[in-house]
Amino acid sequence: MQGRPNFSASYRVYYEDTDAGGVVYYANYLKYMERCRTDWLAALGIDQWKLRQERNVQFAVVNLDMNYLRPAKLGDDIRVTAVLMRLTAVTFSFEQDVWRGADQLVKGNTRVACLDSLSLKPRAIPSDLFKEWRDEQ
Amino acid sequence: MQGRPNFSASYRVYYEDTDAGGVVYYANYLKYMERCRTDWLAALGIDQWKLRQERNVQFAVVNLDMNYLRPAKLGDDIRVTAVLMRLTAVTFSFEQDVWRGADQLVKGNTRVACLDSLSLKPRAIPSDLFKEWRDEQ
Amino acid sequence: MQGRPNFSASYRVYYEDTDAGGVVYYANYLKYMERCRTDWLAALGIDQWKLRQERNVQFAVVNLDMNYLRPAKLGDDIRVTAVLMRLTAVTFSFEQDVWRGADQLVKGNTRVACLDSLSLKPRAIPSDLFKEWRDEQ
Amino acid sequence: MQGRPNFSASYRVYYEDTDAGGVVYYANYLKYMERCRTDWLAALGIDQWKLRQERNVQFAVVNLDMNYLRPAKLGDDIRVTAVLMRLTAVTFSFEQDVWRGADQLVKGNTRVACLDSLSLKPRAIPSDLFKEWRDEQ
Repeated sequence: MQGRPNFSASYRVYYEDTDAGGVVYYANYLKYMERCRTDWLAALGIDQWKLRQERNVQFAVVNLDMNYLRPAKLGDDIRVTAVLMRLTAVTFSFEQDVWRGADQLVKGNTRVACLDSLSLKPRAIPSDLFKEWRDEQ
Repeated sequence: MQGRPNFSASYRVYYEDTDAGGVVYYANYLKYMERCRTDWLAALGIDQWKLRQERNVQFAVVNLDMNYLRPAKLGDDIRVTAVLMRLTAVTFSFEQDVWRGADQLVKGNTRVACLDSLSLKPRAIPSDLFKEWRDEQ
Repeated sequence: MQGRPNFSASYRVYYEDTDAGGVVYYANYLKYMERCRTDWLAALGIDQWKLRQERNVQFAVVNLDMNYLRPAKLGDDIRVTAVLMRLTAVTFSFEQDVWRGADQLVKGNTRVACLDSLSLKPRAIPSDLFKEWRDEQ
Repeated sequence: MQGRPNFSASYRVYYEDTDAGGVVYYANYLKYMERCRTDWLAALGIDQWKLRQERNVQFAVVNLDMNYLRPAKLGDDIRVTAVLMRLTAVTFSFEQDVWRGADQLVKGNTRVACLDSLSLKPRAIPSDLFKEWRDEQ
C-alpha cells in the first residue's frame, strides 16, 4: 500500500439505491465508486465542472470489472475505497472496493481516461494535474 | 378532450425503477412522465439534442404536483399520458397521469419552460415549434 | 420556526445527479428530499429497514408539489431542509426546500403516509413513534 | 451464433440516462443490460415478481466486465444484445453488447446467479426453468 495513492469515503444507502430485491441495485455501486473518485479529486482541489467549462477536459470510465460478494441494504453505511494502481499519459487505473464494516461487499477495478469535452476523444492528462501522484509512480 | 392535444406511451417497470419497499420509487414516476413528453416531441419531429446543440434551446420543468394513488410494481406495463392544458409564449402546462390498465396510479401536473441553454434563463418558445398546437389553443 | 420540528442536511451534487442539460435532473431533487427525511428518522433513532422487517411498517410519499427556482450543478454542495407542518394519525406534511448557500433552488411540499408493508394500505403511525413531535403539535 | 440462445431489445436514451458530460452516464448501461435480460425472461414467460413472491427465487449479477467504446447520447435509439454463453446449476453467463446502428458502444459480460430470496444465498436454478436452453447446451 505504501507509495500507492489512495482515498476512501463513506456513504449511506437510501431507498433510491435499493430495488425490489430488497438490496442495492447492481448499477448503483458504480455511483458510489464515482462519488469516491470525485471526492478524491475535490480533496485534491480539482473542480471537474470548471475543468470542463474552462479547459474542455473531462474524465470517463473506459473499462470496469466488478465482483459482487455480498449485498448492501437500506440504511447501511458503506465505505468505498480507491487505490491508484497505474497512471499513464491518458488514463488512471484504480482498485475500488466497497465495504460495510469488516465485510467486503464489492471488489472492483476501474480505468478512467482523460477526454477532450468537445470531441469526446482521448487526450493527454494536463501536466499540471496529479503532480503528487506522478512523483509517487 | 376534444381540441386538447394529447399523447400517451407505455413503459415497462424494471428492477431499476423499484426500491426496497417493493414498488416503484416515487421519484421514478417523474422519469416516466418525461419519457412521455420526450416521445411526444420526437413524434412531432423535434430532436431535443439538436435543438440544444444548434439553437441553444432546451426545456425544463418549473412546477410539478403529484398525487400518488396506487403503486406500480416490478413487471407492470404502465401507460403515461400527457394532455396539453395551456401553451404560453414561454411555458407549456400538461396534465400527466400514470395508469396500469384501468387503474390510475398517479395524477400529476407539470409546467415546462423554454430556456436559453447558455444562460439557463427563460426565453420565448421558437415560433416555428408547436404551430399545430398554437392553432388549437 | 419555534415549535416546528425541523431538520436539514447537506449533500454534494455528483455526475449521477446531472443530465445532458448540464444541471441536476428534475426527478433527482426528490432523492435529496428523501435522503433528508431518512436522515431525520435516523437522527431520531428510527431504522426504516427494521421497521419494515419487524413491524411491517413503511412510509410513502402520497402528495408532492415542487417549484424549481434555480438549477443546481455538478459539484454544488446543497442543503435540504424539512419542516414538519402537520402530523395526523396516518400522515406527515413537510415543507422541504433546497438551498445552495443563500440561493433557494427548490421550494417543495411533501405529504407522507404510513403504510402496512404487506397490504401497502394506509395504517395508523405506531404510537411509540414521534412522541416528541406529538408533544409539540 | 447457431446453438447459442440470444435475444436483443431496443431502448431510447432519455434525459434521465445522461449526465452533465453530455452523454449516457456509465452506470446506466447496466440498466439497459438488465432490461434486456428481463425482457428476455418475459419473452420466455417468466415473471420475476411472481418467481420471488411465490417461490422465493430471484436473480442477481455476481460478476461484470464492461468495455466502453463510444458514448450514447440523448435521443439515440440503442440496441442491447444478450447471448447465453454458459448455463450451470446456479449461474448464467451472458455476452451483452450495446449498439447504435452499426457502431458498437459497449462490450460487456455478465454472470448472474440464482438466489434464495429470503437468505440471499445462491441456490440451484429451478429445474422447470430454461429447459429450452438446457437442451441447447
